[in-house]
Amino acid sequence: MTGSGALTDWGACAADLLDDLASLSEPGSGVTRLPFTAEHRAALELLAARMRQAGLRVTLDDAGTLVGRLDGPRGRGALLMGSHQDSVRQGGAYDGIMGVVLPLIALEKLQAEGREPPCAVEVLAFADEEGVRFPTALVGSRALAGTVDPAVFDMEDADGTSLRAAMTGFGLSPGGIGELKRDPGDVIGFVETHIEQGPVLERAGEALGVVSAICGIERHSLGIVGETGHAGTLPMEGRKDALVAGSAIVTEVNRLARETPELRGTVGSFAIGPNVVNAVPRVVRMTAEFRSPEDAVRRAAGDALHDFAERVCGEMGLSLSCEMTYQQPAQPCAAGLSDRLARAIRAVGGKGLVLPSGATHDASAMADLCPVAMLFVRCRGGVSHRPEEYAAPGDMGQAVDVLADLVMSLE
Amino acid sequence: MTGSGALTDWGACAADLLDDLASLSEPGSGVTRLPFTAEHRAALELLAARMRQAGLRVTLDDAGTLVGRLDGPRGRGALLMGSHQDSVRQGGAYDGIMGVVLPLIALEKLQAEGREPPCAVEVLAFADEEGVRFPTALVGSRALAGTVDPAVFDMEDADGTSLRAAMTGFGLSPGGIGELKRDPGDVIGFVETHIEQGPVLERAGEALGVVSAICGIERHSLGIVGETGHAGTLPMEGRKDALVAGSAIVTEVNRLARETPELRGTVGSFAIGPNVVNAVPRVVRMTAEFRSPEDAVRRAAGDALHDFAERVCGEMGLSLSCEMTYQQPAQPCAAGLSDRLARAIRAVGGKGLVLPSGATHDASAMADLCPVAMLFVRCRGGVSHRPEEYAAPGDMGQAVDVLADLVMSLE
Repeated sequence: MTGSGALTDWGACAADLLDDLASLSEPGSGVTRLPFTAEHRAALELLAARMRQAGLRVTLDDAGTLVGRLDGPRGRGALLMGSHQDSVRQGGAYDGIMGVVLPLIALEKLQAEGREPPCAVEVLAFADEEGVRFPTALVGSRALAGTVDPAVFDMEDADGTSLRAAMTGFGLSPGGIGELKRDPGDVIGFVETHIEQGPVLERAGEALGVVSAICGIERHSLGIVGETGHAGTLPMEGRKDALVAGSAIVTEVNRLARETPELRGTVGSFAIGPNVVNAVPRVVRMTAEFRSPEDAVRRAAGDALHDFAERVCGEMGLSLSCEMTYQQPAQPCAAGLSDRLARAIRAVGGKGLVLPSGATHDASAMADLCPVAMLFVRCRGGVSHRPEEYAAPGDMGQAVDVLADLVMSLE
Repeated sequence: MTGSGALTDWGACAADLLDDLASLSEPGSGVTRLPFTAEHRAALELLAARMRQAGLRVTLDDAGTLVGRLDGPRGRGALLMGSHQDSVRQGGAYDGIMGVVLPLIALEKLQAEGREPPCAVEVLAFADEEGVRFPTALVGSRALAGTVDPAVFDMEDADGTSLRAAMTGFGLSPGGIGELKRDPGDVIGFVETHIEQGPVLERAGEALGVVSAICGIERHSLGIVGETGHAGTLPMEGRKDALVAGSAIVTEVNRLARETPELRGTVGSFAIGPNVVNAVPRVVRMTAEFRSPEDAVRRAAGDALHDFAERVCGEMGLSLSCEMTYQQPAQPCAAGLSDRLARAIRAVGGKGLVLPSGATHDASAMADLCPVAMLFVRCRGGVSHRPEEYAAPGDMGQAVDVLADLVMSLE
């Protein structure tokens, strides 16, 4: 090992940079950094300066993605590494942005150690993955994959500003987004580092894990209509109580997910009407969501939900609407890159634990372009999207080592 | 039979008078007639004129109760018959007011037939039973029983008008309400006629029924607090999903009420937070209500609810608050008056079906003064508190016969 790299605590470096970035937020609790805003601009300036210091060539593409590139030998593609700069409202200091900082620090470490990557490397900070400001997301990663739907530019935020206007105001040319599509031959793959946002690594006592697949998702919207009536005067016999049926469906979604391996099931939204102490509920509006790394498992759960809801409502004489409103297939991660990540984790003393990602990430969109892999970092209490979100500097330091090793392993 | 009574369709008379009264409403769908308003005044004027035509002596007492009295032989008490003049907002044309109209028509019928009641009879139109304008109700009936809490006069409506100010503005002297208390020795009993507000008579093919008891009520407020989290990243194992627990409680309340004779159980209010498709619900706020003509049955259900909720939340690691917020004991109806009603129903071809009243009525408060009984009239579809509320003229005609017979039976 050469240079001063061995003396530097790279995890602490990452924590310091993340602290600085966390201050670039709307006022209020936690971090609120929405795309195409003054806070976004400030974060890009800080990141760009740091990238330049590390010898990267910095550009901002027309989707608002900050790209820091270290050129490599001619004839080889680039390894892309990154994640998103934006947060949810009053979110944490790690979700997304940590996946920009850690690969950047990994390149600083390689530079400090005098080690030259065997291929070109790009660090990417996508503008918008959370979809909080506009009712769309992943525009940056989709632009690289060439899968942006032009209709999204007409979408408006809560103030009535279109995505097109917001991007133009940010100095971008949304009309040029078609030219951002990368040639798959120029790209080795995309590696996204992210906090787990769940408790699996913490429960296992592991700092890092490798994602097997990004779970597929399906969402169902259910409407149950019965009959209201006076809670005192309506006999139990013959009641058409929509809440009783809705509750049976909640119980079934939970049972199904608990008893089926690799399935998560949640009723997240649930409302009744009328909603008064002495009236039998007439209506329930609810959602049900299933996620699984196995599409067949997820589809079977969705079908079982529809069958169960129809049976329950049929028996009780309630009318039911039950519609799948969203579906996104599972995205398996590439075996080659994932195996390299697992080996690098074992080299720093971890087990190389493999787990599915229940949440969607930029890697989902990048998979349309190239092989993708994801490195999960343990987060305290499984908490994300909240000000308390936290990843330990020691864990981030291990992730820096793993990313640096991954880059060097591509020789 | 003498006079012109046999030629008159008394049910149609009742329907005509109820139609006229229904027009004395705030604008909008159905009937909205709140206490101490211009609509209340108009209804009292119409009723008072009709009472005078029937030979009744009319007064308005200081609680706003219109009293039409037909004196009887000295030394005998009076039979009181009546109900409330007020409606809910956008309610129907029968709830309450029909119980004023039918005894009045019954006295018209007796007069037309030349039959003289063997005792004094009063027809009462109470100002406020629904409690829609002020957060209290039953002031008129409680005044007769001497059970008005003076604190109620400070209660305010949505415009900030106190009950005291509203009554004073209506020409009443709320300070004189203590003098309205009747001497039980002057009262034979109170008979309230009311639409059933439920489907029991309609299902049984009966026009009329006799109430066995006014159900006792208890209400519980439950708060369940678990932990939210991302629906994709939080494994099923170890979730603290408040909606799953709340749904189990809804199912249990329903099971308990269906399997326990003479018990009704309803979760009428139910809300969750956060309430978004991809977040595990952290909080449920819900109510549970039990009603039964048997207080012991109702209390056992309330205890079983608390035990069940504690067990479910304990097993899932959720915190629970569970509080009984309201309790009102059951009020059995008087056997003597009820038997007379049943006999009179059988005399007009009915079965004299006996059923509990799940709703509270003025009779609940009058029971503190004297024996009470209730006559239920079939309503279409069990519907009440809605513009579609309907009782057939033929059924009301039978009720008029029954009330007239009841009066004459007191000889």
